[in-house]
Amino acid sequence: MSTLPMILSRRLRPSPFEERVLENGASAFTLYNKMILPLVYESYEIEYEHLCEHVQIWDVACERQVEIVGPDALRLVELITPRDMSKCKVGQCKYAPLCDENGGIINDPIILRLAEDRFWLSIADSDVNLWVKGVAYGRGFDVRVFEPDVSPLAIQGPKADDLMADVVGEHTRDIKFFWFIDETVAGTPVKIARSGWSGKGGFEIYLQDSAKGNDLWDLFWEAGQKYNLRPGAPNLIERVETGLKSYGQDMTIDSNPFEAALEKYIDLDKKAEYMSREALAEIAKTGPEKRLVNLAIDGGQLKVMRAEWQVINADGENVGVVTTRVYSPRYESNIAFAVVDAAHAAVGTTLSVDAEGDVRSATVRDARWQLG
Amino acid sequence: MSTLPMILSRRLRPSPFEERVLENGASAFTLYNKMILPLVYESYEIEYEHLCEHVQIWDVACERQVEIVGPDALRLVELITPRDMSKCKVGQCKYAPLCDENGGIINDPIILRLAEDRFWLSIADSDVNLWVKGVAYGRGFDVRVFEPDVSPLAIQGPKADDLMADVVGEHTRDIKFFWFIDETVAGTPVKIARSGWSGKGGFEIYLQDSAKGNDLWDLFWEAGQKYNLRPGAPNLIERVETGLKSYGQDMTIDSNPFEAALEKYIDLDKKAEYMSREALAEIAKTGPEKRLVNLAIDGGQLKVMRAEWQVINADGENVGVVTTRVYSPRYESNIAFAVVDAAHAAVGTTLSVDAEGDVRSATVRDARWQLG
Repeated sequence: MSTLPMILSRRLRPSPFEERVLENGASAFTLYNKMILPLVYESYEIEYEHLCEHVQIWDVACERQVEIVGPDALRLVELITPRDMSKCKVGQCKYAPLCDENGGIINDPIILRLAEDRFWLSIADSDVNLWVKGVAYGRGFDVRVFEPDVSPLAIQGPKADDLMADVVGEHTRDIKFFWFIDETVAGTPVKIARSGWSGKGGFEIYLQDSAKGNDLWDLFWEAGQKYNLRPGAPNLIERVETGLKSYGQDMTIDSNPFEAALEKYIDLDKKAEYMSREALAEIAKTGPEKRLVNLAIDGGQLKVMRAEWQVINADGENVGVVTTRVYSPRYESNIAFAVVDAAHAAVGTTLSVDAEGDVRSATVRDARWQLG
Repeated sequence: MSTLPMILSRRLRPSPFEERVLENGASAFTLYNKMILPLVYESYEIEYEHLCEHVQIWDVACERQVEIVGPDALRLVELITPRDMSKCKVGQCKYAPLCDENGGIINDPIILRLAEDRFWLSIADSDVNLWVKGVAYGRGFDVRVFEPDVSPLAIQGPKADDLMADVVGEHTRDIKFFWFIDETVAGTPVKIARSGWSGKGGFEIYLQDSAKGNDLWDLFWEAGQKYNLRPGAPNLIERVETGLKSYGQDMTIDSNPFEAALEKYIDLDKKAEYMSREALAEIAKTGPEKRLVNLAIDGGQLKVMRAEWQVINADGENVGVVTTRVYSPRYESNIAFAVVDAAHAAVGTTLSVDAEGDVRSATVRDARWQLG
């Protein structure tokens, strides 16, 4: 694992859970929305195995919220996403790509509907608040857009339901996938959603007072000991196996939802106005030029990727790039996301990957996934 | 110096100069606009002393550009800043805070006017492209807003003029402060501006083809040996001494230009429409509630700041927070920026700073500075 020493400064905002994360020995980090996101404690592999069997507590405070509130809130939310948000009920969450007027992906938040006229966009790594504020200002919408003091803490893994039931109550077992409830936990109001950045099940707890980070962590920490709770993080191996793409890495503003294999999460015929309607209709007609796919890459474990790895077809032509790769202990294979020319995106296609001189055979697999 | 190990990933975009930066032993970094910014090679102190006497080469590719081009480009640039951009001639740069409709600072770029209808915003750490695109979309302006392949390389220090004259020509001595020229250097088109993130003079070279990073670096590297050129970075000691504030650290979207001591860089009475006019007029009338000041803090070198350091008045009340602090070898003093209640912002005011239990006496100094 290749790391660089990063200096902390006030520009890089502390998480409410940072003290506990450091005490528990987090050993490698990234920066995400200008906050420190712990990625590894012992190793990806150890935490992957543990996540598949037990339950983990994750500092994901860097999943910042953009609050949109006011009479035009729904109109604004509809405008910025091709997903039909009129179907999102109060108490429900929807995974919704945000697309600009060219169909380019601005971010891929989970949108929580807090009230008829109030939403949180729980965002990936880009300044969505600036985008939404800019659009709202330009259109003269009657809304307020801001980043509230909200920091998610995730409880993930197969024993998450038991732990949540112990701490908050048996009724939490009935929270449906991509719905949330309001609770008071550790003496502070939170929202608890059945969601999270893994395929192993669990919850995201939206802390609304950053002074209460230690209290919330400690409550789950202590109750979790009987379930073999450990600190963890969004796990690279697990996310690629599950098919979870990362904004900024597997898709950018230059991608569209068809290219990013997110067509399940858009409703081109929705009634409300949305800014990407014409652009996406055009792409739907012709098909995207490129396509995000899963690749299984042959041979032993590949090195860590820093330079661009080309994907090559049978004629030796560059037809794409690898965007994420990891070694899966479960499949005993290098697995990857890659963006390839649409002509080479069919499941089963044989391609090659040039991993900085280490050329390997690779096979296309499906990259679609299932979210709320 | 407190650092954390950061994992590199494709989401954190490489700089065209990264290979040279790592070869030359950069030892501590930050992330800025989702790119790696080297901050230290040997130490802040050693690089500070060297910068004051010689010339340095800095990888500041993370100062990304937002290009605005099209018939409504000037109208859009005017709308987003309270600075009068009609006075900015083609070939000139202006330091211009961007302010939202509440007067809040979105970013504080240097704006380059490339043509009558074409600008680059050379930005601090926030997704200005999303803000500007959002406003342009909402207003229906006829412009294109995007991030071009442009990466600045800085040549800073008192010998920068001699080095630039050797490499590019004697005519570069005549580039005026905050103006730029077009050149072909190392076989690739660049813009060379007399500007940079230090008070020691020098240039920023805007590389327009990221494949040419090594070529450009090597050309200045070799020619610079006779001037004792070393690799360096925006230097914390130098920037606080010079009075250069950092967006996200010393000011945020919750600050306004009066609070941030940037009133020299706004023109409240400019003719063009700008979105912060009403809000800033109101603040100008009443005066800002808070004010960014320099503090000289008594006693020996203070520890590195991570938690919030309170500023305290004679009555023991919290009246502000320290935003940046450093020890200045030249002044043999801890020097800092702090945001304090306006009532305590007068030059000469005596205050205290609570540095996580280490309470020191401090004196307010002026925090205004001079840019183009």
